[in-house]
Amino acid sequence: MNLILLAPDQALSDSHYQLNTRQQEHIAKVLKKAHDDTLRVGLLNGLIGDAVLDLERWQVTLGQLTTQPPKALPMELILALPRPNMLKRTLMNITAMGVKTVHLLHSAKVEKSYWQSPVLTDASIHDYLIEGLEQARDTVLPVVHQYTRFRPFVEDTLPDLLQGRVGLVAHPYQAETCPVDLQEPCVLAIGPEGGWNEFEMEKWSDAGMQSVHLGERILKVETAVPVLLSRLYPAK
Amino acid sequence: MNLILLAPDQALSDSHYQLNTRQQEHIAKVLKKAHDDTLRVGLLNGLIGDAVLDLERWQVTLGQLTTQPPKALPMELILALPRPNMLKRTLMNITAMGVKTVHLLHSAKVEKSYWQSPVLTDASIHDYLIEGLEQARDTVLPVVHQYTRFRPFVEDTLPDLLQGRVGLVAHPYQAETCPVDLQEPCVLAIGPEGGWNEFEMEKWSDAGMQSVHLGERILKVETAVPVLLSRLYPAK
Repeated sequence: MNLILLAPDQALSDSHYQLNTRQQEHIAKVLKKAHDDTLRVGLLNGLIGDAVLDLERWQVTLGQLTTQPPKALPMELILALPRPNMLKRTLMNITAMGVKTVHLLHSAKVEKSYWQSPVLTDASIHDYLIEGLEQARDTVLPVVHQYTRFRPFVEDTLPDLLQGRVGLVAHPYQAETCPVDLQEPCVLAIGPEGGWNEFEMEKWSDAGMQSVHLGERILKVETAVPVLLSRLYPAK
Repeated sequence: MNLILLAPDQALSDSHYQLNTRQQEHIAKVLKKAHDDTLRVGLLNGLIGDAVLDLERWQVTLGQLTTQPPKALPMELILALPRPNMLKRTLMNITAMGVKTVHLLHSAKVEKSYWQSPVLTDASIHDYLIEGLEQARDTVLPVVHQYTRFRPFVEDTLPDLLQGRVGLVAHPYQAETCPVDLQEPCVLAIGPEGGWNEFEMEKWSDAGMQSVHLGERILKVETAVPVLLSRLYPAK
């Protein structure tokens, strides 16, 4: 937790916020702050600045919040639904890296049971996104969409996403080397372990998505995701 | 397992190898191969090619192995010892990405108990490295060194590593932006969660290591590692 992120439901007034249990524990055990100490805080979907800690009431009083959150990545990320454990880490990591729109998609090699996981409830996803924001000192909550059918997504939803964006689909075979330091917004689709199947690759291609690879090495999804994001948009 | 990796102790003759239990299970359950089918195999620290499967004896007969393993990253990676669970994943991931020399190092913010973890035994480390090679279809086993004391490593070992290599230490503060597509070999040091402390940063600096950051966002070590490797040496 590199930032204390304050949600609207924690507001007592415009400048007073109640800290939640997780924040209290972090402030007490990790930051070891004393009464009247200064804390770095951010308003959910808002600005960042300092606040003064009231340790008796577990409240903070905001100073001037003037710092903008870090820049977002100019991309829409499509991700074949990973297995639940990997999904947790992936949601945190891509949030920390600045992805703001995630489309979780079914694919032939995604096990149907993954869609029943409690990780996919709104409340659970929200928690992982918040952890990612706290990690990266960001405040802007990503939006996560879920699509349990591949074809309607590619045929009906993807064309709108591709307006003004270059479309890339990560695929180890028959592909161009993935670009480095892309100068335009993109839609990036990352497949499941085992990759997209032939039908899916055809549909991506029909929709105008260009397939890109990362060299000879086949990486796990959890490695390929940060590798691809960092390669397309290296932080300045 | 994207490659069946054969170790010297599996050799029955120059061209016949016995498959181990893990490989047998993978071939039966995931690859679903039949008797006399062809398999992609690699010799540990050697070449890659096709072999014919003898499903009754769980043996393979090598054809001509003529494919070189993928290129290694031209770097020495120094890593403050991560907590055991993260270490497992990190060893697999950096092996898959092509790191060939890893120096696990103590640091002020590394918990001493981490050094007692069974993950750090030679046999356990070997298993994670093998998994990383199988993932990336590589054959060249990395070498992992362990240093339980920070200062002697920086003073006595680091100068030799820096011969002919540029030295970079990842640090979020008072640093230059990390280079993209580095054209020379490097030594890269990545700190623990919480970062290197002031004394450590001074020692790195005295040794000639330049501190580099990844922008405003603070990433977890497991995210920062693939981000840094992919940024320094994007796969071609």
